[in-house]
Amino acid sequence: MRFFSDNAAAACPEVMAAIAEANRLDTAYDGDSYSKRLNAAFSELFGKEVEALWVATGTAANSLALAALCPPHGSIVCHRDAHIQNDECGAPEFYTHGAKLVLAEGEGAKLTPEAVEAALATIRNDVHQVQPHALSLTNATEYGLVYNPDEVAALGRLAKERGLGFHMDGARFANAVARAGCSPTDLTWKAGVDALSFGFVKNGGMSAEVLIFFDPELAKATYYRRKRAGHLLSKGRYLAAQILAMLKDDVWLRNARAANDAAARLAVAAGPERLVLPVEANEVFIKVTADEAQRLREQGFDFYDWGPGEARLVTSWDTDAAHVEALAAAIRTL
Amino acid sequence: MRFFSDNAAAACPEVMAAIAEANRLDTAYDGDSYSKRLNAAFSELFGKEVEALWVATGTAANSLALAALCPPHGSIVCHRDAHIQNDECGAPEFYTHGAKLVLAEGEGAKLTPEAVEAALATIRNDVHQVQPHALSLTNATEYGLVYNPDEVAALGRLAKERGLGFHMDGARFANAVARAGCSPTDLTWKAGVDALSFGFVKNGGMSAEVLIFFDPELAKATYYRRKRAGHLLSKGRYLAAQILAMLKDDVWLRNARAANDAAARLAVAAGPERLVLPVEANEVFIKVTADEAQRLREQGFDFYDWGPGEARLVTSWDTDAAHVEALAAAIRTL
Amino acid sequence: MRFFSDNAAAACPEVMAAIAEANRLDTAYDGDSYSKRLNAAFSELFGKEVEALWVATGTAANSLALAALCPPHGSIVCHRDAHIQNDECGAPEFYTHGAKLVLAEGEGAKLTPEAVEAALATIRNDVHQVQPHALSLTNATEYGLVYNPDEVAALGRLAKERGLGFHMDGARFANAVARAGCSPTDLTWKAGVDALSFGFVKNGGMSAEVLIFFDPELAKATYYRRKRAGHLLSKGRYLAAQILAMLKDDVWLRNARAANDAAARLAVAAGPERLVLPVEANEVFIKVTADEAQRLREQGFDFYDWGPGEARLVTSWDTDAAHVEALAAAIRTL
Amino acid sequence: MRFFSDNAAAACPEVMAAIAEANRLDTAYDGDSYSKRLNAAFSELFGKEVEALWVATGTAANSLALAALCPPHGSIVCHRDAHIQNDECGAPEFYTHGAKLVLAEGEGAKLTPEAVEAALATIRNDVHQVQPHALSLTNATEYGLVYNPDEVAALGRLAKERGLGFHMDGARFANAVARAGCSPTDLTWKAGVDALSFGFVKNGGMSAEVLIFFDPELAKATYYRRKRAGHLLSKGRYLAAQILAMLKDDVWLRNARAANDAAARLAVAAGPERLVLPVEANEVFIKVTADEAQRLREQGFDFYDWGPGEARLVTSWDTDAAHVEALAAAIRTL
Repeated sequence: MRFFSDNAAAACPEVMAAIAEANRLDTAYDGDSYSKRLNAAFSELFGKEVEALWVATGTAANSLALAALCPPHGSIVCHRDAHIQNDECGAPEFYTHGAKLVLAEGEGAKLTPEAVEAALATIRNDVHQVQPHALSLTNATEYGLVYNPDEVAALGRLAKERGLGFHMDGARFANAVARAGCSPTDLTWKAGVDALSFGFVKNGGMSAEVLIFFDPELAKATYYRRKRAGHLLSKGRYLAAQILAMLKDDVWLRNARAANDAAARLAVAAGPERLVLPVEANEVFIKVTADEAQRLREQGFDFYDWGPGEARLVTSWDTDAAHVEALAAAIRTL
Repeated sequence: MRFFSDNAAAACPEVMAAIAEANRLDTAYDGDSYSKRLNAAFSELFGKEVEALWVATGTAANSLALAALCPPHGSIVCHRDAHIQNDECGAPEFYTHGAKLVLAEGEGAKLTPEAVEAALATIRNDVHQVQPHALSLTNATEYGLVYNPDEVAALGRLAKERGLGFHMDGARFANAVARAGCSPTDLTWKAGVDALSFGFVKNGGMSAEVLIFFDPELAKATYYRRKRAGHLLSKGRYLAAQILAMLKDDVWLRNARAANDAAARLAVAAGPERLVLPVEANEVFIKVTADEAQRLREQGFDFYDWGPGEARLVTSWDTDAAHVEALAAAIRTL
Repeated sequence: MRFFSDNAAAACPEVMAAIAEANRLDTAYDGDSYSKRLNAAFSELFGKEVEALWVATGTAANSLALAALCPPHGSIVCHRDAHIQNDECGAPEFYTHGAKLVLAEGEGAKLTPEAVEAALATIRNDVHQVQPHALSLTNATEYGLVYNPDEVAALGRLAKERGLGFHMDGARFANAVARAGCSPTDLTWKAGVDALSFGFVKNGGMSAEVLIFFDPELAKATYYRRKRAGHLLSKGRYLAAQILAMLKDDVWLRNARAANDAAARLAVAAGPERLVLPVEANEVFIKVTADEAQRLREQGFDFYDWGPGEARLVTSWDTDAAHVEALAAAIRTL
Repeated sequence: MRFFSDNAAAACPEVMAAIAEANRLDTAYDGDSYSKRLNAAFSELFGKEVEALWVATGTAANSLALAALCPPHGSIVCHRDAHIQNDECGAPEFYTHGAKLVLAEGEGAKLTPEAVEAALATIRNDVHQVQPHALSLTNATEYGLVYNPDEVAALGRLAKERGLGFHMDGARFANAVARAGCSPTDLTWKAGVDALSFGFVKNGGMSAEVLIFFDPELAKATYYRRKRAGHLLSKGRYLAAQILAMLKDDVWLRNARAANDAAARLAVAAGPERLVLPVEANEVFIKVTADEAQRLREQGFDFYDWGPGEARLVTSWDTDAAHVEALAAAIRTL
């Protein structure tokens, strides 16, 4: 009974069916019949002409977005706990050719305008210091919190005022939309977001993420950068097919809701005392002693320790309801 | 009836089955049960301890290999028609942080020690010039020629003498092995090759290539570079499973032989007069007038024009025998 | 009696005096009283508002210019014998983060629109190939030829048509202006040049070159790139003072004329039979046998062999007239 | 009466004389008679075979050192207030091709083993995180504190244990040696330092710093990187001559002592109440109200405000003794 990571989950049936269906001769790279439908599909979803590029990883999506928004001599403001800072082995620095990440504070990996302002205030406006060019947030955050549209919009206004490009790392964007109960539009370009890494892999995909540019002009160089980074797969149709299958009938939302619901059940079981943070998406951080963690493991539950005295439980689209109930029960009886 | 590109081919049944079989919960990234078997599987194939890293594209495999062999201030000798020079949008320059490609000449995109020596002879050994650090060849070449083990070994000796790392772009390595009738070993480390991009996608895979380092020490930094480049897929098991399925029972060789055989049939049909180059792998370059090309297209055959008066016909593991016969007949009757 | 290189020459008296005069407390970096006058001084010289940045080397000037004109995923067309290709250890690749140099042909390192067109014609307009973004020429060329305003303008028109930024490596710009007998304006922005590396060091300076942007907008990021490259000297006044001293009373032209005149005297002595190329600036390439070269050296003349059967003689602002006459005589009597 | 920056100081007489003496024809780049003596001169100073490369700025020296010690996918631990982090516009990231700076804490910009350990402890040893490869400290620090040999050695031992290259930014190394009263050797390689940026410009030089590698093997690639960065000046003799002149008769120490002494006099005048930090080199940080700062300025003293309620006073080799006494008196009477 694994609650390790949503990366460990399988691909959902719609994705597997789409891959099987796409398994025939087609044009190479992104010239195929599936890839050609991406821009239209996402333009419809977002109610605006967008450019949508598939890539194989969230790291690539994030880094390509940041390279579009920040020059090598610039910096990107992000949270101290952001995935782009801690878990991508310096991919943003690689793709941007050495831009800096400027780290802001905030509970649960969540940025506020005040926190961003405080980070910006440390930067003198002269040629000796790297100047800020972009702002990046993660929604849902690395700690499972969700920005609602107003919160994103407040950061979007700040970004605009300060001349910063605005990127959203949406590795768990579906979970955020499901939680916020809003449209994807409200959470993105209407709130000032310029580029979105729209995650599919953690949410039931196999190997496809999408990078969305809300200003098509911004996307232009990215087609070259994607190829140059070795991310233009030669049989791109298998990526596009996955994505289209998950857009159809809102599979992406259905999957995210399932994961969120499972996490919510665990949150209820844990109760406010044991929860480190509110549970708003598909990650549950609980306080456990080493002894308690050990007892959970003895009952067959797998999960990450998250620093001393804490554990991270992650649910996914396919987390077995029985496993969730079992874990909920086990937490209650700790 | 498409003879455009082996990138357009479908994935072979063994690959599709392996993906379906792998579609269950497993550890993320390359910690899964499939990925963990790669080193052993390729060490067995090559009769030597090797490190084998999956990546999603040949461009990534090539560029990671070159970054392991050449510093930013160095250069890589390759053929003027090499894929790394012409078809990767500068990926080698991106991954190596600005190394130069030094271009050597040779019929059919094939290097000889003399051609490499001539290219090296243009470089003064002083600090004002970029010094050579690596040699890269493509086998089978971009024009469908195959280096046999002796030819590779001659280049390998030169590389060693000149202190150059030696990379083989094996996007069509299977076709080369099938043609040379030798072991993969004879064509690689026994001939001095340090790093091999071992292609699977063109040969019946879906989205997995393998980068082989024959000296495990060379691989160490590449694990970081792969992650940093966004090429450590979070569900890596789907890549590893494809590869293992193609290694089993020599599916990779069976597929390559099928493609080579189809090309050979077209070569016979074309005859020596019409062939631009000998056909040794799965690419056929023929001389055709614009009018002849037009007539072939009118009969339903798709292919690339390859400069004025030439066309490229590519076969793949799944090229329909009837289509091959039809095209052969059509060529004969031009 | 050295005819090795104009880099070996001393600094001229005006430069030494200016350095002495600047040797007092002043503001650091480029905030000092000298640096602040550069933009105005060059705007006056060029009859147009320009931005002028001092740097310590021509390599830095060239590379900063190219980084302003070409993105990492782009390419720069230049001559096969260009200094940026052969003598800067890959500095353009470093500063541009991996742009490619595309090499064009031409006698005496001189480009023509036809040669540039031929180089451009090899580049397919698709995402798999690095697309051209800039054109760079050297005036006077590495072989001592001079582009006149019409020749530059023809290349400038081509650059504009093809959307290429246009850079001039003017390590010996003064020699070119002196030879062409035109204004610096005619040879630069009026002919379409966007950025000029204006050399002072070879022409009697000590350690200061100037990078000129004819479109101030282009210069903006370069202030950051210069600092980031470690080229914002903390006591910049010593560089600015050199340059201002050489601008005053056209010392730069006087020095260049002296060097050109010395070369012209050698050219006359050599005669058309022995000259490899016309002598238009301060470099003389002559045909000499190994034995003849040896005889010249025995008479005390130093110079570079330039491939088999050729030698390069370089004059400078301070080449002793007696040495020139002696060498001229020695050549005549070979 | 300026106490702004030691970068504002003039060049000392020995330097000016050396430049005048070097002003004659010599070999270009670093082949001249001065540059050729650098390695021997510094090997003698440090009692060990070292490689010594001149560059024009401390930023270049630091960045070249870091590029020699840290790969693009690595990180460098330094103090949060380090010059390499705050005042070089990302030069370390540029030269290292995107390495990260990991920031450690400590009073007065001074690192301790504990602070470095704490910074290292935040880094998981897996491929998702950038791994540490180097440690960099500044001596004297950006806040005018001096590490003595024991303190450097403690950090050196930690660096060795953790496999980190060890760099010292010695923009004010002379001031540190003068203060510590030890040999340059004790403060560097005997304490584990691998590379030293040895500053001359702030200490009476005009335009020359030296990068010292205590392991000559480490220097090899740096010769190429220096050229590639545009830092191989074509008339390098003017840099080497400055440095040799300052080494002779310990001018570098004499100058540093003068600056330190002037600062010490200001420190005494300020008294412990007003001093923000102990004064150990040539920088004095004092607590002043806005009103007090204003009064000092009205008396003709120039200096930087350093955050609210603080001011920075910097002395240099040529600070006028009368100005120092005047400022001391003014501070006393605040």
